[in-house]
Amino acid sequence: MNIINIRVVYFPAIQTRRADMIQPFKNASGPRLRFGRGEAVFVGEESLALGMENPIIITDPGLLKAGVLEPVIQGFKDARIKFSLFDDAEPNPSDASILRAKEFYESNDCQGMIGIGGGSAIDTAKAMGTLLTNGGKISDYYGADKPSKRIPPFITVPTTAGTGSEVTRASIVTDVEMGTKASIHSDMLYADVAVVDPSLLATLPRYFAAGSLTDALTHAIESLGSPRANPWTEALCYEAISLIGKYARRFVENPGDPDAADSVSLAATLAGASFTNTGLGIVHGLTHPVFNFFGGHHGTTNGILLAPVMTFNLPAMRQKYAKLAPLLANPSKPAAINAEDGGAAEATIESVHSLALDIGIPPSLGAIGVKEEYLNRMAVEAAKSSTVLTNPVSADEQDMKKIYLGLLG
Amino acid sequence: MNIINIRVVYFPAIQTRRADMIQPFKNASGPRLRFGRGEAVFVGEESLALGMENPIIITDPGLLKAGVLEPVIQGFKDARIKFSLFDDAEPNPSDASILRAKEFYESNDCQGMIGIGGGSAIDTAKAMGTLLTNGGKISDYYGADKPSKRIPPFITVPTTAGTGSEVTRASIVTDVEMGTKASIHSDMLYADVAVVDPSLLATLPRYFAAGSLTDALTHAIESLGSPRANPWTEALCYEAISLIGKYARRFVENPGDPDAADSVSLAATLAGASFTNTGLGIVHGLTHPVFNFFGGHHGTTNGILLAPVMTFNLPAMRQKYAKLAPLLANPSKPAAINAEDGGAAEATIESVHSLALDIGIPPSLGAIGVKEEYLNRMAVEAAKSSTVLTNPVSADEQDMKKIYLGLLG
Repeated sequence: MNIINIRVVYFPAIQTRRADMIQPFKNASGPRLRFGRGEAVFVGEESLALGMENPIIITDPGLLKAGVLEPVIQGFKDARIKFSLFDDAEPNPSDASILRAKEFYESNDCQGMIGIGGGSAIDTAKAMGTLLTNGGKISDYYGADKPSKRIPPFITVPTTAGTGSEVTRASIVTDVEMGTKASIHSDMLYADVAVVDPSLLATLPRYFAAGSLTDALTHAIESLGSPRANPWTEALCYEAISLIGKYARRFVENPGDPDAADSVSLAATLAGASFTNTGLGIVHGLTHPVFNFFGGHHGTTNGILLAPVMTFNLPAMRQKYAKLAPLLANPSKPAAINAEDGGAAEATIESVHSLALDIGIPPSLGAIGVKEEYLNRMAVEAAKSSTVLTNPVSADEQDMKKIYLGLLG
Repeated sequence: MNIINIRVVYFPAIQTRRADMIQPFKNASGPRLRFGRGEAVFVGEESLALGMENPIIITDPGLLKAGVLEPVIQGFKDARIKFSLFDDAEPNPSDASILRAKEFYESNDCQGMIGIGGGSAIDTAKAMGTLLTNGGKISDYYGADKPSKRIPPFITVPTTAGTGSEVTRASIVTDVEMGTKASIHSDMLYADVAVVDPSLLATLPRYFAAGSLTDALTHAIESLGSPRANPWTEALCYEAISLIGKYARRFVENPGDPDAADSVSLAATLAGASFTNTGLGIVHGLTHPVFNFFGGHHGTTNGILLAPVMTFNLPAMRQKYAKLAPLLANPSKPAAINAEDGGAAEATIESVHSLALDIGIPPSLGAIGVKEEYLNRMAVEAAKSSTVLTNPVSADEQDMKKIYLGLLG
């Protein structure tokens, strides 16, 4: 072995890395994906393939009542597979609700987890799974890379086109004692299989269809702006944004429209597969304090904040936003704009703004009850968010407050 | 549970699936990816993280001599990790060479595998791993989904921008007794981690740089044409083709050019991550008989066949090829073409043709020694290839022979 060769071949190669080149990155091995209209009947088959015996199916009562779970349950019955149904997942799941799920899992002697829902049922399963294999209490795992053991075998089945949680490493938990949302981020939390069946979205109420969709759009746009973005994740984001640009209005008008539902479902999953590797930006940092002080639907609040934050981030994002202009132009209006046109980046922000309004996202934070006297405390919280680190422009408390203030209207 | 709901909500949703919609698809959970200039020093760290003790490092003598392995080996030495170096991997590895690797693995009591090379060293590791955990002989596993057990822990390190084998489920083996190439396709063959370090390509000879690059381009274009293509895999293919279009000439001119090497390395990996899910087309079906009768470099033969096969496939590919026109236009010539322009699909084929010639791919099969008297037998073999099933246009023996004949010149 000739050590000289290292100097000749290798170190010069490292030294030639510049800021404008592709920076080193890591992409996780996410879940296997099974996508398509009608695929939900195969969840039972997939759980058998993973060797699950008597898996817990975690969902919420609304989904059960609306019949959304029927194809999944029918698949289990047809294949004569035992399961235990826990239909008590909470929206924005509290730590207490996760302990209830864990008790149910243990007292029913379950092996393996199936999370069916928007982000909440899936996040409940991830947090429960963390406790099952790692022990301790939930707050032990807040932050990044704390769990050391894989969660039990896990299948995710999203019922909105939004959170991307079916393919991400994150679980968002509401810590009642701390009075805030907290998150667990770990490669140990990836599902084994994500079954994405857009036909499950057919009964989604308009308000949630819109809010979850602006959540997905926010994921794609914030992932694109992360300093950890790379050509792989960017390709997924551009595709996600293109699908949302074409089909968002049709989907919210009628979530049973198959072309629209297929497209936005896949978009949400693509955005999830991207942001789980890159992190997000300050839209998410700003949204969590809104929830902590005023509640509200996560994706809807993102939808209110997205365009104003894009304006804040514009100096660093001009080129990428310009590429989005033709993708986000209202497809029912003929005046298309090209990425090379002057003002293309601004046109993208305007398109995001009018898309949100068109699908029924409220026009301001004031409209969802946010009050000025809380803004200082909210801005302090937002500035502490880890999303500041993956936002393309640095943002402090004052910046956060200014963005909030501009949206009281 | 209300069974009626299934009929109301669910079956109509399935029935609304049409041929022009997103068809159900499965994407595998491929390896975790660690990409970047200089990352090869972390292979040792990754092997520790996977719990490997004394892994086999499989490579070929040429790479060892050229010093390409130095950063990997230095990383192992710095971290004081034991390894066993097997530098006897063959190009187009024979079944016998795989058994030699297996004997080496067992007699050195290795745990875990690291494949460093073009496709061949990596494919050797995959085939060896199949025997180690599944027993039997290699021919037991030819075809799709035969192995039932995961191969040992496995890290791949590509040293060309070509095969994509670092992220695929395939191992291509030369069966000496049968006198043909055979392949093993299985999800059990995925690596745990792919470490893609473009600085390892700096000493690649021009001929192999060109041939491996047209291999990668063929993967992206054939994957795009597969009936199993979907928006996810297509996004990866368009990005791969865009990177190759911009940087192929610069890379072949100087594989040490960091921008070019980074871009084409990532392109090859993206193409691999796509085609492992979609399958390939008849370029590959036509190339294998050329190898079986005349030998030659796999990627180079693909490069000769690619444009003529695109002409054959044009009736089914007009729209997608048109989208490639601006991506593949020679970047040093200003006359760009848009996807919407008349003749854009034909311009793409012409661009592929001139790209191949510009980087030194021979102009015909005749130029690499293929003789007319073998064409009938080659066409019979090509028509039996499983790639016929994932080609966008059906192709029989006569079609295969016509394509060969047109390339004798």
